[in-house]
Amino acid sequence: MSDNGSQIKERAIVLLELVKENLSQLNEDELIRFIEILKSHRNNKILIMGAGRSGLIGKAFGMRLLHLGFNAYVLGDTIVPSVSKEDLVIAISGSGTTKLVVTAAEAAKQVNAEVVAITSYPSSPLGRISTHTVFLKGRVEISTKDYFARQILGLHEPLAPLGTVFEDSAMFLLDSVIATLMIQLNVEEADMRKRHANIE
Amino acid sequence: MSDNGSQIKERAIVLLELVKENLSQLNEDELIRFIEILKSHRNNKILIMGAGRSGLIGKAFGMRLLHLGFNAYVLGDTIVPSVSKEDLVIAISGSGTTKLVVTAAEAAKQVNAEVVAITSYPSSPLGRISTHTVFLKGRVEISTKDYFARQILGLHEPLAPLGTVFEDSAMFLLDSVIATLMIQLNVEEADMRKRHANIE
Amino acid sequence: MSDNGSQIKERAIVLLELVKENLSQLNEDELIRFIEILKSHRNNKILIMGAGRSGLIGKAFGMRLLHLGFNAYVLGDTIVPSVSKEDLVIAISGSGTTKLVVTAAEAAKQVNAEVVAITSYPSSPLGRISTHTVFLKGRVEISTKDYFARQILGLHEPLAPLGTVFEDSAMFLLDSVIATLMIQLNVEEADMRKRHANIE
Amino acid sequence: MSDNGSQIKERAIVLLELVKENLSQLNEDELIRFIEILKSHRNNKILIMGAGRSGLIGKAFGMRLLHLGFNAYVLGDTIVPSVSKEDLVIAISGSGTTKLVVTAAEAAKQVNAEVVAITSYPSSPLGRISTHTVFLKGRVEISTKDYFARQILGLHEPLAPLGTVFEDSAMFLLDSVIATLMIQLNVEEADMRKRHANIE
Repeated sequence: MSDNGSQIKERAIVLLELVKENLSQLNEDELIRFIEILKSHRNNKILIMGAGRSGLIGKAFGMRLLHLGFNAYVLGDTIVPSVSKEDLVIAISGSGTTKLVVTAAEAAKQVNAEVVAITSYPSSPLGRISTHTVFLKGRVEISTKDYFARQILGLHEPLAPLGTVFEDSAMFLLDSVIATLMIQLNVEEADMRKRHANIE
Repeated sequence: MSDNGSQIKERAIVLLELVKENLSQLNEDELIRFIEILKSHRNNKILIMGAGRSGLIGKAFGMRLLHLGFNAYVLGDTIVPSVSKEDLVIAISGSGTTKLVVTAAEAAKQVNAEVVAITSYPSSPLGRISTHTVFLKGRVEISTKDYFARQILGLHEPLAPLGTVFEDSAMFLLDSVIATLMIQLNVEEADMRKRHANIE
Repeated sequence: MSDNGSQIKERAIVLLELVKENLSQLNEDELIRFIEILKSHRNNKILIMGAGRSGLIGKAFGMRLLHLGFNAYVLGDTIVPSVSKEDLVIAISGSGTTKLVVTAAEAAKQVNAEVVAITSYPSSPLGRISTHTVFLKGRVEISTKDYFARQILGLHEPLAPLGTVFEDSAMFLLDSVIATLMIQLNVEEADMRKRHANIE
Repeated sequence: MSDNGSQIKERAIVLLELVKENLSQLNEDELIRFIEILKSHRNNKILIMGAGRSGLIGKAFGMRLLHLGFNAYVLGDTIVPSVSKEDLVIAISGSGTTKLVVTAAEAAKQVNAEVVAITSYPSSPLGRISTHTVFLKGRVEISTKDYFARQILGLHEPLAPLGTVFEDSAMFLLDSVIATLMIQLNVEEADMRKRHANIE
């Protein structure tokens, strides 16, 4: 089947629009509280977790927290410290049902750690375990999208398979959280560069 | 310093606009050729590499290629097969100078593998090694941005530290490549789900 | 407290003796069957799993299986394919109770994959799930060890904290399995070198 | 080709003997100095690196250092902090020529970090970069081994392909270093258990 580069670019733009729609539905109070929780754990451990691509987005967030001077760790690394009640766990799962993430969040809850869930389903098992939830809309069913999207996608193919839109939205949400922390904590990019891995 | 949730959302939107600007400058011919190269390696090995957050974006891309039925591997995994001349290496580096990536691309070149570079600097060491380049604009200096961005950022702080805009743009570019491959190869989401890890 | 290099060497030798004792108690029939199971999955997927240091030993085993030409994968890598009934899962856990490993083994069981457990407790949850068990003795309590060990350890400190002796024993067991597969499959070291990652 | 379980056990024992021979040639002064360097970096960062299976052995060592209370990190993890002159880098490479490891050690040297090399070739590129070397014998050529080994191996096959004996020897060396640190720093196993990851 034929296709051209222009369509690839258009698909990227449609994806952007889907993400924009998701971000516009973020709850402001939840974001403010999330930032406050992060700042109040500046001297404690922060452990980030997620499965599959959500886990990769969490790792990208953890790297930037490290650059900001936080004691960030990510599940799946070799070096993962023990967590206790003064620490923060951030769990990313669109469905809120991923077994690995729910099990790990339960373990965090048992030691009375703060647990923030980023999920499309606040009433999911993960949502119910967490002490704070950031609602982030997940995949938009293509059937609900407008004519433009249908045209580009040929009316029959999903633009964004599996959890793509949730994952891409989470990436933007968390990068905005980083920008906000930079401003509020008055961290310059030069400071971050110093904390960036110099051996890799 | 005070801040509110609305600003966090606005920052995400500004980030989206920066990414959109980058994507609009993608070269159509380069994209068409990239898709062709991917399809012509459907029965060969595809090894994806990048350092830091670019590496994570590459891993997210590798997962989806696996779901599409490609023999995808990512540098940094335990299981990385040897690569030879019929195989494809995809290297992601905004600067095109990351030592780890350049060294690995050189090794790939020595065995005559196809090497595709995704970079903001086609004339960088990585760009010169590669057999095909996809130009993707990197960080937009905030000084060149419009009033809206400056307002939100308080006129003095970078919205997107280090390589953030390049990385987020690469995420969208590669997710659009996946959508395009789904259409051209006629792969349904249900097929992808079957190839998704069922043990994690 | 003072100490000298000679004692460090002696501790390594005592560790070796503990491992030797464990290996001497391996069940021959279980090993023969394990080798047969591996060989019968030469053209299927083999997924290896373990938590913490046991997981690292599993990864070292997975690398060598790859070098031998097997389709080996390890849990924790980015690239982990789906598993089905014709595939083999190898789970390594001294206690046989590690939640992550038991949960993953259950998922493997549900798709009717073959599940081999390497564990000190064949009657543990992991042992009961598995379709074949290789019994490998775990930590030897220092109180049961001879005078020599006590002397070196100062009579009060464990030589090998946590699961060390199980992990080191598993390393030797699995490296011997690799040597055996090399012989039985008539694979030369030169063949393995060709399959060794040439980009790293 | 036929084989039986008893031979698998015997192969493990032969491997143990090869490792024992290597460990017996460790230099006592080098070990004492290595322990001193580790202890003097108890409040600094320790970054461990190695490629392939040597890297996995380094990760297993890093986990235990974490359990002992050290600020240990491993190359290849998502979270890798920047390193400076008060920090310690430990590089593991049998040949001392692995490009990735040599490049990383050079970067460490440039910031004047302490660099300890564990290698079979102290005069290799890695050995020359390092500020301290621990010599650990690598693979023993099977042609130099005694009759017993030849019999078991069928006179023609290597028992331990590629770097196996170096890697297994390094595992024992480093586990003995951990035992020594436990004694000298008066750390009980119960203390280590508290620092062990409780979410996994």
